[in-house]
Amino acid sequence: MEAFKEIAVVKIGGNVIDSPEATARFLKDFARIEGAKILVHGGGKLATRLSAQLGIETRMIDGRRVTDRETLDVVTMVYAGLVNKNLVAALSAEGCRAVGLSGADADVIPARRRPAEPVDFGYVGDIAPHAINTGFIASLLAQGIAPVFCALTHDGAGSLLNTNADSVASAVACAASTLAPTRLVFCFEKPGVLRDVDDPASVIREITPSVYAALKADGTVSKGMLPKIDGAFRAIEGGVARVEIKQAGDLLADAGTVLRAR
Amino acid sequence: MEAFKEIAVVKIGGNVIDSPEATARFLKDFARIEGAKILVHGGGKLATRLSAQLGIETRMIDGRRVTDRETLDVVTMVYAGLVNKNLVAALSAEGCRAVGLSGADADVIPARRRPAEPVDFGYVGDIAPHAINTGFIASLLAQGIAPVFCALTHDGAGSLLNTNADSVASAVACAASTLAPTRLVFCFEKPGVLRDVDDPASVIREITPSVYAALKADGTVSKGMLPKIDGAFRAIEGGVARVEIKQAGDLLADAGTVLRAR
Repeated sequence: MEAFKEIAVVKIGGNVIDSPEATARFLKDFARIEGAKILVHGGGKLATRLSAQLGIETRMIDGRRVTDRETLDVVTMVYAGLVNKNLVAALSAEGCRAVGLSGADADVIPARRRPAEPVDFGYVGDIAPHAINTGFIASLLAQGIAPVFCALTHDGAGSLLNTNADSVASAVACAASTLAPTRLVFCFEKPGVLRDVDDPASVIREITPSVYAALKADGTVSKGMLPKIDGAFRAIEGGVARVEIKQAGDLLADAGTVLRAR
Repeated sequence: MEAFKEIAVVKIGGNVIDSPEATARFLKDFARIEGAKILVHGGGKLATRLSAQLGIETRMIDGRRVTDRETLDVVTMVYAGLVNKNLVAALSAEGCRAVGLSGADADVIPARRRPAEPVDFGYVGDIAPHAINTGFIASLLAQGIAPVFCALTHDGAGSLLNTNADSVASAVACAASTLAPTRLVFCFEKPGVLRDVDDPASVIREITPSVYAALKADGTVSKGMLPKIDGAFRAIEGGVARVEIKQAGDLLADAGTVLRAR
């Protein structure tokens, strides 16, 4: 097995996926990242649109999609089909060989269906820790192929499961960390974590746990950012070398917020 | 690279895909095939149904789907998403690791968009001969993984292309033949090529080119079967050891029609 110098895991969400221009720009930059790289994508807004066209009601609880049988089919079509395969085809046109994956492919991300209590989210999965098929990811990277993950996992008993894309990115990055130092990049709608939400120039360039404690104590970090930063630090505890929170357009730039263990 | 004793390439169409029971039975059998194996699937009827639900008109010319931009999105959702990923998840539950692929993944099946003359089929691809990424297929087989192909290829310039599933199966089988002796199995609605279309017991067990010439000369083989048998013999000319035409339920049985070079 070839050794990797560094692995980049990049997560994009709706703010990129929903704009063909933003997607094209982003993929050009992603293709230019040197060395081993992995893409993780969402696609929620397109799923909501297709559900509406098919007369299927979209129900969200705490920002999470309630995934009944019909909705599972919709997200499977949109995430694993429409979005994933068009990203793969576009990357290929940029000279970057890619393979689109759900968690069921090569059993790469096994998950457990979330218990129906206290809230029944339906076909929603929580990733089984340390169960990722890292060997398969390594075999793709060693061939110069970029794995492209959609936000679907599976229960190992035949059912796909809808899974939060940030969680997929974190789990994949933790697994990649066992192969090489890994950076996890969350592409964000703002240029980074801001001291002042209304001032895009107020990016906090570096956050360590002690800086984070101070930012929380003085109320600088807005409530909506807390889960994202908490998740980033969990990824760092899981082995990720650093997490970057930045705009998709800044992918190749030294910009945005960097989170580190120290 | 591990050497393979034999490779089985199995193609299933709508008569299997459209029935959850038939699919479950088939996948149990497919998972039991020993050694290297590849699955190729259609999904046309589900695509037609989704098109209708979305108010998109389905146009067929000579049995081929005219694929405009909207229809390409539909087939991408249905073939690469809904059908492909559910097959992969179900195979995993049967203990068979699988990876679902379109032709864009790892650039595994490059194609050329079919010229608009004499008939403009839209985003429809003809597979570029000898361009298949056989090394990638081999890397999956060597890991004990079954590649599962949907009937989509790509033009290398960012567009997916709708492609006949029989053609995908033949092209993949010809490529596999460079790795090991390969048999190509077309799962068919009838138990094989019949002497008498109305008598399921009249299966012709073996067809060689000389037998085929006689069957054509005396009008035994019905017109609808000619393209299928012609395609099978082209695959044999392309290196495939033998082609089987049989019912999905007979996958593991010594049944159906076998076509050989001599």
